[in-house]
Amino acid sequence: MLSRKISAQLRKYETPFYLYDMDLLRQTLQSAVSLAARYGYKIHYAIKANFDPRIVATVREFGIGVDCASGNEVRCAVEAGFDPSGIVYAGVGKRDKEIRYAVETGIFAINCESLQELENIDAIAGALGKVQRVGLRINPDIDPKTNKCIDTGQADSKFGISYEEVMAKIDFIRSLKNVKIAGMHLHIGSQIRELHVFEYLCHKVNSIVEHLTGLGLEFEFVDVGGGLGINYDFPENEPVPNFASVFSIINSHLKVGGCEVHFEFGRSLVAQCGELITSVLYNKTTATGRKLVIVDASMTELIRPALYGAYHNIENVTSEATDTERYTIAGTACESTDIFDESITLPKTQRGDLLSIKSAGAYGMSMASRYNLHDLPGAVYSDEI
Amino acid sequence: MLSRKISAQLRKYETPFYLYDMDLLRQTLQSAVSLAARYGYKIHYAIKANFDPRIVATVREFGIGVDCASGNEVRCAVEAGFDPSGIVYAGVGKRDKEIRYAVETGIFAINCESLQELENIDAIAGALGKVQRVGLRINPDIDPKTNKCIDTGQADSKFGISYEEVMAKIDFIRSLKNVKIAGMHLHIGSQIRELHVFEYLCHKVNSIVEHLTGLGLEFEFVDVGGGLGINYDFPENEPVPNFASVFSIINSHLKVGGCEVHFEFGRSLVAQCGELITSVLYNKTTATGRKLVIVDASMTELIRPALYGAYHNIENVTSEATDTERYTIAGTACESTDIFDESITLPKTQRGDLLSIKSAGAYGMSMASRYNLHDLPGAVYSDEI
Repeated sequence: MLSRKISAQLRKYETPFYLYDMDLLRQTLQSAVSLAARYGYKIHYAIKANFDPRIVATVREFGIGVDCASGNEVRCAVEAGFDPSGIVYAGVGKRDKEIRYAVETGIFAINCESLQELENIDAIAGALGKVQRVGLRINPDIDPKTNKCIDTGQADSKFGISYEEVMAKIDFIRSLKNVKIAGMHLHIGSQIRELHVFEYLCHKVNSIVEHLTGLGLEFEFVDVGGGLGINYDFPENEPVPNFASVFSIINSHLKVGGCEVHFEFGRSLVAQCGELITSVLYNKTTATGRKLVIVDASMTELIRPALYGAYHNIENVTSEATDTERYTIAGTACESTDIFDESITLPKTQRGDLLSIKSAGAYGMSMASRYNLHDLPGAVYSDEI
Repeated sequence: MLSRKISAQLRKYETPFYLYDMDLLRQTLQSAVSLAARYGYKIHYAIKANFDPRIVATVREFGIGVDCASGNEVRCAVEAGFDPSGIVYAGVGKRDKEIRYAVETGIFAINCESLQELENIDAIAGALGKVQRVGLRINPDIDPKTNKCIDTGQADSKFGISYEEVMAKIDFIRSLKNVKIAGMHLHIGSQIRELHVFEYLCHKVNSIVEHLTGLGLEFEFVDVGGGLGINYDFPENEPVPNFASVFSIINSHLKVGGCEVHFEFGRSLVAQCGELITSVLYNKTTATGRKLVIVDASMTELIRPALYGAYHNIENVTSEATDTERYTIAGTACESTDIFDESITLPKTQRGDLLSIKSAGAYGMSMASRYNLHDLPGAVYSDEI
């Protein structure tokens, strides 16, 4: 863990801040890119995970594309120098101005989430005198065996178009002149650790592609989404996620002829390189005997524990104490849910100690708010220390 | 409801935006202030509920104080022209620089949440050659009968100092030279609708004040917090919360001699005057038959439903349809939890309709984020339309 190794140097920065291990980020990107190359797979970075400019610039060095969830994310990727031909844009609620910008920019594909949206893209592209490449985002109806807050692919979900509806409206879909149905997109959720769900996904994709090809659609790409989980419990044991396994499963089970196969990785590329570094402000003990450690970070910097009950491993990176205590780590926001860990054993922890909240490189800074008028946290990069 | 009355005029603003009914805000403030005056009670506005500049300026017109949860909130109040002598500052995680700023600014009181913090305030005030007025925030150990996410006064909570610890360390507390223990602060939670819990609070306060006065502390004020709930279910039935009842209960049961009695109201002052106005982008139906309405707002503008499972009443303010449907109202963010209502009956709702998400004046804009790189929403004030 970077913060433990360089803890003395961390004192010069105002807490809380995000610390990024740029070597680990590069190692992770290198692993994903080189393993993908074995199969000719293409990777897009889900920029919603972290749009920090240095993270984004580093991702770009590795020649991968970008998966965007809004018009502003498309703009951010273009302004960061990504080639529009490597940008895809998904999202259930695309506004006209966002679609117009994406069409004008000439991005690789818009992944479309409803037939009404498809009609809208067709109209906007038509008005601009263009034909827009589209991926149909089809709801795969697969349980990803993950936190229900972050599954996206069950039949009841707000994401994607039901396969039944695509079948029923196939003539309408084929009749649209200003969209080219170039691909299919399925995404089953996030933080998937039971990799056999990717096998189910392949069988679903195979059957959908076969049927829809039989009905006259011609797919150039299949986007199988992202979702590869990371090890939040023991990040040191698995700093680089197991891209090899997911590629191998997909390679063994996906039968989509000459289609390009695309992946969207967010969390798996950037979560482990980031830590949220926070100072201990106060200790106190409640009437019930709970030992509270109050830190200067809060849900305004990292909302995942409050929002999802998500677990992040926490370490005291400055304590030299050998005796331990059981603590509750509480944030500074005026909210009862602002607790980073209800019960964790740490070396004796006191005012001035620095804690690392690990695996915080994804969905940390990108979900930050200014609630309680907190300043947004800064970022420190390992290669600039 | 304002938005229904002026729905035609709302078309000129880009959605999503917050719409504030400034007449209702003034009516609410007038009610609180005039009822409080009957008893000589003082009110502080919990600025964390909404720090919109026009809301804050309007609050100031009514001559009430401000309850702050961070140094930046203190600064915001001072810069908005509030007299420092009406500002209090509470919060479990006050940093040295925040305490220093509060002491230098000469605010009314710092409400202190741990003995270690008290020692720290004493040291900082000493270094500045000052004596800081402090309210001891004591954990009252009362169940507020509200959402567990927003209760703050049970014995296990991160807020306040346990009464047992105050008793045990009374000599230490009295020995500090640069803090003057001027008051006591108890706050049991938020969105309290069962008003009899305020009666329990009074009994607790009476007994604590009596005991601590006997031990030599001299209280000038008792801050009984806030927590008065609003009617989220039927906001039109109760646009102005029932301040009269809570004051009457406190007046009947609180026995604290000549102490000033202070209240901190946030939600109850500003929630009902605000609506989040959003456009319908798309309709679609899932394979399970769920009818989804996708709107252009999301958890980035209003996170309460995703964060707490909070309910907000929603109305279609432009539809003239007489037939109704049961819908799920989903936001545009790339998150499964980004659902405003799982099951609501509305007049037939379609692309271009405007929906009002009501009672959104508190903990709406102040918790907004730029996740998915969404722009922060704008604000429209009824007296500027």
